[in-house]
Amino acid sequence: MQNFKLHFSYDGTAYHGFQVQKNALTIQQVMEDALEKLFEREIKLEGAGRTDAGVHAREQVASFYAPPKIPADRLPHALNGMLPNDIVVYRAAAMEHGFSARKDARSKLYTYTIDNNYFPNVFLRLYAWHLRKHLDLERMGAAASFLQGKHDFKAFQSSGTEPDSTVRTLFELSLERNREKNMLFLFFKGDGFLYKMVRNITGTLVEVGTGKKEPADVQKILESRDRRQAGAAAPAHGLCLEKVCYEDG
Amino acid sequence: MQNFKLHFSYDGTAYHGFQVQKNALTIQQVMEDALEKLFEREIKLEGAGRTDAGVHAREQVASFYAPPKIPADRLPHALNGMLPNDIVVYRAAAMEHGFSARKDARSKLYTYTIDNNYFPNVFLRLYAWHLRKHLDLERMGAAASFLQGKHDFKAFQSSGTEPDSTVRTLFELSLERNREKNMLFLFFKGDGFLYKMVRNITGTLVEVGTGKKEPADVQKILESRDRRQAGAAAPAHGLCLEKVCYEDG
Repeated sequence: MQNFKLHFSYDGTAYHGFQVQKNALTIQQVMEDALEKLFEREIKLEGAGRTDAGVHAREQVASFYAPPKIPADRLPHALNGMLPNDIVVYRAAAMEHGFSARKDARSKLYTYTIDNNYFPNVFLRLYAWHLRKHLDLERMGAAASFLQGKHDFKAFQSSGTEPDSTVRTLFELSLERNREKNMLFLFFKGDGFLYKMVRNITGTLVEVGTGKKEPADVQKILESRDRRQAGAAAPAHGLCLEKVCYEDG
Repeated sequence: MQNFKLHFSYDGTAYHGFQVQKNALTIQQVMEDALEKLFEREIKLEGAGRTDAGVHAREQVASFYAPPKIPADRLPHALNGMLPNDIVVYRAAAMEHGFSARKDARSKLYTYTIDNNYFPNVFLRLYAWHLRKHLDLERMGAAASFLQGKHDFKAFQSSGTEPDSTVRTLFELSLERNREKNMLFLFFKGDGFLYKMVRNITGTLVEVGTGKKEPADVQKILESRDRRQAGAAAPAHGLCLEKVCYEDG
């Protein structure tokens, strides 16, 4: 059997997240169905990370084992021909045995997009959180600085999954405003993310940006390890998995 | 009765164009329904221009007469509360009697967007024409130069409507490439456009860009006044009405 790696994008709007669930359409399911047709056998796809319902991916990575009957460079075309047009496979590679898209991922980059126009941009309604209120980027940046680095992020973890450790490293948490277009982007690069961690942090930073919380409150929330202290999760549709990084890039 | 002007955006994906049709969902219909609820009487909305099924608008303009019971500046919020979220009203003004969004429009700006990436950008699949082939921008620019100015554009008019005159003025027809993102934008500014004129010109320019036609062919096509000489219409979803200009801006 050959080990393959796929790079693909998807618009998460129509899906109940990446990971297979009973009685719900998921990206993994749709892709495994396409792989099964292509290889004429059941294929188990392993994604680098789960994305929740409505969350998008510009670059998601997954690996799977299959008979070596199709050259890797022909996989994107073959799969795209069978996939709905809200999933696009754009790269594939043959990998050595043992490579795992999930276990070998070193870091992930997520972006959270906020449409800060007074009236929403209709073309971004599925890809950005529309927030009318003015957001003070300086305050948000000050709050974000408390979260960078290695911390126990338990306060920003939603219930649902319980990993052994809630310690993660945020290599980067930066903010960027496009003044002309009234857009705000939050960049999160970390070695791993707890359940809804990016959305919980975003929701909390937005409360700092609107003045509901103080930047220093974020430090206290982090130390409390108490989910109830943090702000409400930002909606799923503003979130996008931007990139998965491996040792070799 | 008060004359009102509305500025609004829409994602045309779900609609059979702007103009009311029997047995089909149109933007005009949905907006007239919202206006009827708001003013509790039948309202006739006059759009600055029609857009075809699947065509988008960043700025469409329309006018209507209604009782003066709602101040213009409250109309966007009141209407957005009743409209689906793929239509966003973002400005309204009270106009003097006699103003017509259609008749008083001096020019319109359309953009046509081409996704020239090898694999389509999944987030632009509803807003750009995905073309894998390399497009030679210099050739397309040379062809476009024949079309600027005042001409009889009959060769670029699709059958369906027959205006008295097929002479129109293209004040601007320019092309721009975003190399980093592999996107191509065509800008059309004109005093009016024949049925499918922008899409027919785009399809023809693309044939020049791929080498199927020569730039000078476009001059001959224009002079032929024969629709069969021009290229196939570019698909609707890459087209967007960008702006409608009036005497006062």
